[in-house]
Amino acid sequence: MDSTAETTDGYQAWSEVTPDAARRLLVAAVEAFAERGYHATTTRDIAGRAGMSPAALYIHYKTKEELLHRISRIGHDKALEILETAASAPAAAAERLDAAVRSFVRWHAAHHTTARVVQYELDALAPEHRSEIVALRRRSDAAVRRILSEGVRAGEFDVPDVPGTTLAVLSLCIDVARWFNVDGRRTPDEVGALYADLVLRMVGARPAAGTAPKR
Amino acid sequence: MDSTAETTDGYQAWSEVTPDAARRLLVAAVEAFAERGYHATTTRDIAGRAGMSPAALYIHYKTKEELLHRISRIGHDKALEILETAASAPAAAAERLDAAVRSFVRWHAAHHTTARVVQYELDALAPEHRSEIVALRRRSDAAVRRILSEGVRAGEFDVPDVPGTTLAVLSLCIDVARWFNVDGRRTPDEVGALYADLVLRMVGARPAAGTAPKR
Repeated sequence: MDSTAETTDGYQAWSEVTPDAARRLLVAAVEAFAERGYHATTTRDIAGRAGMSPAALYIHYKTKEELLHRISRIGHDKALEILETAASAPAAAAERLDAAVRSFVRWHAAHHTTARVVQYELDALAPEHRSEIVALRRRSDAAVRRILSEGVRAGEFDVPDVPGTTLAVLSLCIDVARWFNVDGRRTPDEVGALYADLVLRMVGARPAAGTAPKR
Repeated sequence: MDSTAETTDGYQAWSEVTPDAARRLLVAAVEAFAERGYHATTTRDIAGRAGMSPAALYIHYKTKEELLHRISRIGHDKALEILETAASAPAAAAERLDAAVRSFVRWHAAHHTTARVVQYELDALAPEHRSEIVALRRRSDAAVRRILSEGVRAGEFDVPDVPGTTLAVLSLCIDVARWFNVDGRRTPDEVGALYADLVLRMVGARPAAGTAPKR
C-alpha cells in the first residue's frame, strides 16, 4: 500500500461524509494537517489541495476547527465501534482481546495518516469538542477494561493492575500510527497478529480449553 | 510535577548547551514546537518566549531547523545512552530489560514535552540531519534487540519474533510521552514499574533463580 492507496483508502473511509465536495475537503484536510500540523495549515491550503476555492470550502465548513472536529469525531467513532464490537462478542475473554487488538492495530496501520491527526491534534479542538472526544475515549477505554476484568473474573487472565494494563494495551496499538510505514516489512495484518500475541502474554492468558496447559 | 517543573526539568536537562542564552532559546523552542508544531512556529516566536530579540537568536542558531536538530540530537543521544547502559550491565537479561524499560519510560514521562517534539517532528529535519538521527534510532533498537536475543539464548526469554518484539517494547515506552499527564494518577516511577512488569510478561521471562517457578 503506497501513499496513494492510503489516500484512496482514506477517501473510502469517509463515505459517510456527503456531498462529495465535503468529503474531498476532509481528505485534503487530513493530508495537510498530517504534513504541516494543524496550526500551520490554512483553510486556503485545504481548499487548494481539494482543487476548490476558499469560498467553496466555507459552504461546507465554517472554520478549520470544524474540519478537525469532523475528522476527530469520525476517527474516534470508528475506534469505539471496533473495540465495543470486540468486547461484546459471545466468546471467551482471550478471543475477544485478540480480536480487539488485531482490528484496532489494523485500523491504526491502514489509516496511519488519519490516526496521527486524530491522536496528535487533540489540543487544537475547541473546549466543547474536546470534551465530546474525551467522552468517546473513555468509552473506548471502558470496552478494553471490560474484557480484561471479565477475563480476570473467569480465571482466564492474570492482571494485577487492570486500569494500567488497559492503558498500556491501547497505547501500544495507538502508537502503531506513529511508526507504521507502508514501505516497511510488515503488513497491517501481520502487525495485528504479532500485537495480539504480545497482549495475550501481557495479561497472562491461559491457553484455551483443548490445548496443552502451559502451567 | 506541574508544567513549570517540566520546564525547569527541561532546562536542567539541557545543561550541556552553553552559553546560557543558547540554552534558554532551546527550552523556548521545545515549548513552542510542542504547543503549535514546528511549521507554525517562527524564530521570532522562539526569541520572544526566551525574552530575546530575533537578532540575538541568530547569534546562536542560523535557522529554525538548527534548533530542531539540536533538540532531536540531544534527545536521541539521551535515549541511546539509557538503553546502551542497560544493555551492557553485568546482569541477567531479565534484569537488564527491566532496567531499560524503567529508565526509558521514566525519561519519556518526565520529559514528555521534549519527547513529543523529538518523536513527532522527525519529518521536519533536513535530510542529512534526518539520516544522522535515524542512525541513532537504529542503535537504540539494536540495544534492546541485543537484550532480547541474549535472553532467548540464555533460556530466560521465550520470544518467537525478536525484531517485532523489540519494536513493540520501544513503541510502548515512547508512547508514554503522548499520554503522560503530570496531573494524572501515576508518577513516572510508577509507570516505569508497571511497564517493566508488562514487558517481562511479553518476553515470557522465567522467574530468576531463588523465586518460585511459575511453570
